[in-house]
Amino acid sequence: MIGATGTVGQRLVRRLHDHPWFRLTALAASSRSEGKRYGDAVHWLLPTALPDSVAEMEVRDIREIDDCDVVFSALGSSTAREVEPLLAQRGLMVVSNASALRMHPRVPLLIPEVNSDHLDMLDHQNFGSGGIVTNPNCSTVGLVLSLKPLADAFGIEAVQVTTLQAISGAGHPGVPSLDILGNTLPLIPGEEEKLETEPQKLLGTTADGVFSPARFPVSAQTNRVPVVDGHLVSVSVKLGRAASAEEARSVIEDFRSPVADLDLPSAPLRPVVAVDEGPRPQPKLDADRENGMTVTVGRIRDCPVFDLRYVALVHNTERGAAGAAVLNAELLAAAGRLGGANRRTT
Amino acid sequence: MIGATGTVGQRLVRRLHDHPWFRLTALAASSRSEGKRYGDAVHWLLPTALPDSVAEMEVRDIREIDDCDVVFSALGSSTAREVEPLLAQRGLMVVSNASALRMHPRVPLLIPEVNSDHLDMLDHQNFGSGGIVTNPNCSTVGLVLSLKPLADAFGIEAVQVTTLQAISGAGHPGVPSLDILGNTLPLIPGEEEKLETEPQKLLGTTADGVFSPARFPVSAQTNRVPVVDGHLVSVSVKLGRAASAEEARSVIEDFRSPVADLDLPSAPLRPVVAVDEGPRPQPKLDADRENGMTVTVGRIRDCPVFDLRYVALVHNTERGAAGAAVLNAELLAAAGRLGGANRRTT
Amino acid sequence: MIGATGTVGQRLVRRLHDHPWFRLTALAASSRSEGKRYGDAVHWLLPTALPDSVAEMEVRDIREIDDCDVVFSALGSSTAREVEPLLAQRGLMVVSNASALRMHPRVPLLIPEVNSDHLDMLDHQNFGSGGIVTNPNCSTVGLVLSLKPLADAFGIEAVQVTTLQAISGAGHPGVPSLDILGNTLPLIPGEEEKLETEPQKLLGTTADGVFSPARFPVSAQTNRVPVVDGHLVSVSVKLGRAASAEEARSVIEDFRSPVADLDLPSAPLRPVVAVDEGPRPQPKLDADRENGMTVTVGRIRDCPVFDLRYVALVHNTERGAAGAAVLNAELLAAAGRLGGANRRTT
Amino acid sequence: MIGATGTVGQRLVRRLHDHPWFRLTALAASSRSEGKRYGDAVHWLLPTALPDSVAEMEVRDIREIDDCDVVFSALGSSTAREVEPLLAQRGLMVVSNASALRMHPRVPLLIPEVNSDHLDMLDHQNFGSGGIVTNPNCSTVGLVLSLKPLADAFGIEAVQVTTLQAISGAGHPGVPSLDILGNTLPLIPGEEEKLETEPQKLLGTTADGVFSPARFPVSAQTNRVPVVDGHLVSVSVKLGRAASAEEARSVIEDFRSPVADLDLPSAPLRPVVAVDEGPRPQPKLDADRENGMTVTVGRIRDCPVFDLRYVALVHNTERGAAGAAVLNAELLAAAGRLGGANRRTT
Repeated sequence: MIGATGTVGQRLVRRLHDHPWFRLTALAASSRSEGKRYGDAVHWLLPTALPDSVAEMEVRDIREIDDCDVVFSALGSSTAREVEPLLAQRGLMVVSNASALRMHPRVPLLIPEVNSDHLDMLDHQNFGSGGIVTNPNCSTVGLVLSLKPLADAFGIEAVQVTTLQAISGAGHPGVPSLDILGNTLPLIPGEEEKLETEPQKLLGTTADGVFSPARFPVSAQTNRVPVVDGHLVSVSVKLGRAASAEEARSVIEDFRSPVADLDLPSAPLRPVVAVDEGPRPQPKLDADRENGMTVTVGRIRDCPVFDLRYVALVHNTERGAAGAAVLNAELLAAAGRLGGANRRTT
Repeated sequence: MIGATGTVGQRLVRRLHDHPWFRLTALAASSRSEGKRYGDAVHWLLPTALPDSVAEMEVRDIREIDDCDVVFSALGSSTAREVEPLLAQRGLMVVSNASALRMHPRVPLLIPEVNSDHLDMLDHQNFGSGGIVTNPNCSTVGLVLSLKPLADAFGIEAVQVTTLQAISGAGHPGVPSLDILGNTLPLIPGEEEKLETEPQKLLGTTADGVFSPARFPVSAQTNRVPVVDGHLVSVSVKLGRAASAEEARSVIEDFRSPVADLDLPSAPLRPVVAVDEGPRPQPKLDADRENGMTVTVGRIRDCPVFDLRYVALVHNTERGAAGAAVLNAELLAAAGRLGGANRRTT
Repeated sequence: MIGATGTVGQRLVRRLHDHPWFRLTALAASSRSEGKRYGDAVHWLLPTALPDSVAEMEVRDIREIDDCDVVFSALGSSTAREVEPLLAQRGLMVVSNASALRMHPRVPLLIPEVNSDHLDMLDHQNFGSGGIVTNPNCSTVGLVLSLKPLADAFGIEAVQVTTLQAISGAGHPGVPSLDILGNTLPLIPGEEEKLETEPQKLLGTTADGVFSPARFPVSAQTNRVPVVDGHLVSVSVKLGRAASAEEARSVIEDFRSPVADLDLPSAPLRPVVAVDEGPRPQPKLDADRENGMTVTVGRIRDCPVFDLRYVALVHNTERGAAGAAVLNAELLAAAGRLGGANRRTT
Repeated sequence: MIGATGTVGQRLVRRLHDHPWFRLTALAASSRSEGKRYGDAVHWLLPTALPDSVAEMEVRDIREIDDCDVVFSALGSSTAREVEPLLAQRGLMVVSNASALRMHPRVPLLIPEVNSDHLDMLDHQNFGSGGIVTNPNCSTVGLVLSLKPLADAFGIEAVQVTTLQAISGAGHPGVPSLDILGNTLPLIPGEEEKLETEPQKLLGTTADGVFSPARFPVSAQTNRVPVVDGHLVSVSVKLGRAASAEEARSVIEDFRSPVADLDLPSAPLRPVVAVDEGPRPQPKLDADRENGMTVTVGRIRDCPVFDLRYVALVHNTERGAAGAAVLNAELLAAAGRLGGANRRTT
């Protein structure tokens, strides 16, 4: 894994340490950490203890990584833009959480339950013998997993979304406490652009190596709030054909993963769940649903301006980052696009 | 003043204690507090000390109040619905922060800088010789003061608003800390209905004793966040005629109070201010602007779905409650609708 | 279980639902909840879902409870003082988290790893054929589990303790958010008395039905802080014989449960753990250690005034309440003081 | 002023901008800010607006500063250790908030109401024609101002203190929000050493250019809590001669500033105030007392281990930093140790 010391990297370590399919063989991070024990290089932030065997691993140079079947990247965007193509050139399959290449014309932006067919784009990539697959921005995942059943049933014409985003999304040290304690910040740099472009790619189609994005506009307004984990998106949707809140609730409730038969180890039983009693979803009560892999939707109501509105919650560092990447790698494995069983992972 | 022990009541006490026009002559609250010293009856929550002279006042029975020129009501809604008309019948002018009668067909819902002409509705009220005037819901004030310059310049066709609201809006004890610390609640009971109906009354017209509300729909989604004071509204607007963000910013910047010449003591120099650098407005930095009486607008941008979007912040317990009521009373006084100088107030 | 709808009651439900030794047969709460489905009566506050089978149980009248081997009481103190002796009179064994009878001259105040021998006091109780066993105040547990190894090795002469206590200790609705968000409260009513008297009973001895409390004085100062779970106690200790911080650290590290051979299902592998790197223990990182049953001790240092000082952290609603009670019941079962296997519990 | 862009520097700017005695003539900061407009160099964190005239000032090189009567230093410790003596060599009077030289054998550590006579040490300094005066650590100020009346009346034999300290004490960016939101940190690096040595210097005596520190030991345990402003110290004191809590409360209540006749503009009417009702002092309600210059003491009680205990609160960035420095400069001016009237300050 590369970018292993950050907050997403730590969650990747935790998810991969005991993974039934993958074996963590190497950790890499910035040159500052290179050569150190991982246990010394990392400022471990999770309540579950860092496994001793991982703590003893030496942090390696990113450019040395080559002996594995899949590379998980939790790099920052600018490093990722440079390093990930190099690793792919070297024949490695890169599963990235970074934003750098998400909108690249030949890189799948992937949520297994939404657009697993976009994997075919790997056949058209030109990164040498390897490949690159990305997962979306943390908020985008919550938005798109909740839109998917509606898109299938009714079509989407336009989306207004306002977010309430947790501090863990900014990593560590991230947001200074003086800026956010008892306060909110009505801007998260770069976030709105992602929310306004990634959904269309995810809900679009591919043919002959070309992405055709879905055509609806998204207007996104983002806010940082003093919550640790769990991004909430408050959504209003104009549908392709009118539908009542009841109908919408039904299609969300009835939605089942189209890749359920692959039995991906990190896949939740249900990728989206509707709760409709009182002030739900809440980060505190709903973010951890199915190990943070289920998006919770509540307050599904008719909208006096558009057709429909609701609130969705996604665990931003699990389904929105570490869990998203692991699930993508599992999809690759199940699709026969990685090396053999007991895969070695970096 | 009636409802004097609550969080809004306390701020009314603080504003009226040194008021240049009004003199606080009586305090009333629920029967639980009746007969006590105010200092003993109240759980004082403000950092500024409770003035000794007020602490010594005896809390009276609401129904006894009659010797004053204006009654400030910070009652809960159900009590207000019953008590306020009785006081008006007794010849008193009631300036209310309660929601009970805001949408009453003959009661002005008033923001002096927005619709001072609605005062003429007092001539058509049928509460005996007295009268009732109300101020809007705390979030509504932030929304409408920011919409007003846009409505004047471009017209409003539709509004989507998502709020991030402070805990002080729920009073004391209000929101349990276990529910909100490090959490958000995506529902504030009753709040969305107010945000979806009050703006149209405020931006509507009156003629011959009849209100004609403005006709645009509002879709409101409300959230409680762990902030003490300051409601933030994230707004998307469809305008009557298209306008760029730059034009919108100009009309907001150029907006001046139409009642500035009345020199109302609690009126801010500028009711709305635009700030356009980075993550602003913030509750921590902007809520107290001009003693909490100025609404701050930031992030004015074009909207890919509607025409315009922005974020506005209102101090919910000042401009959104106590300050709103005092300002309304000052307007009544300036309009000659209260008794003589050195007015006695309850 | 009685008092089943409160915050401790909910954690008891969660611990007992899947318990290997106990079976939850009845739930009782205040008359307000009586006759309702538990799922309807409770305001469930835990992120793990309420088990369906428990949700369907009917909440019963406390006074009707009689068909079980052990009654867990999470009642408030005044109700407990009245009800618990009645249940014991009826022949039931009451395992109580309430403070009412903790200092009663014949009721064991019990931490299995500290004073399991105090169980013999049950032979001298006069509550009819039943019995009553209590666990300590949540902060006391953290203090005493950390003092126990020191008391054994060096003796205790005096203790100064200042606490930083989580809001969950006050239950729900408990502390109003307006009082604690971004604030601290330097007083928790009733808490200091408990911290100043319970440790001596716990670390004292019993003989012939008489408790002899340990004789050291405790000075306690308590604070509420905006933390959800995890009470921190900052301790200075005057020892019976001088010891260095290193020696103290060793005896804490070497401490093992004297009842480890009973294999109590809720007992942690290690009741006390020393961590000595940087700012630890922290509620966020350390409270959940071993399902919240391990007390974490850090910053063990020499004290320029007394001999020794350190900081200890206890999960207040697990090791300090629900887990404490379940562990006490397990000790009773292992000691043959409950009915048969597959015990029925209320 | 030097170190003008930090959190303490900003408060100094605010206090000096309108100061009746001082005129702000130059601002200096790190080389990163040099040459910029102050308004561009600073990340302004205060709710009151940055004055335009100050925003336009150019940030200068620290080493160029020479045209003023007093230099306020809000530098970090390592820079201060190097720069402050250089400035003094150049003939400037340096009033420093930095910790670097507080314990220097010839530098007064000063709280005007506690040890104004220590100013005589300036006559024995060897920093050329200038001089250096320091104020204590933020927590020390709260501790010592509350101890002073007790020291005068009863003598002090030993002190145990546990602190709950606000995040503003760490400056900006300071404490990462991920570390402190809903959490506490039981260690503030370097803080305990200051609390254990500065009080003795402050409460000691000077004679012939030699400090004789007071001789009581202090044991300090420090905690960071999620509070914005206001350090709380929980104190147990062994007195020189026994006194009841009532007597202690009286001497605290009766304490008046020994330099009251100097009419220092930033001096509070009362440097220490006792409040004794319920959970007080609280950061939220008490930190701002007299513009943050008054220490509030509550919960004065007998101690079962020592003689006395209580809780004191100090506004850490005002009385504990910016206000402390300004008050020290005012004392210097009143003592005739600065240049002429309308003093120029950096």
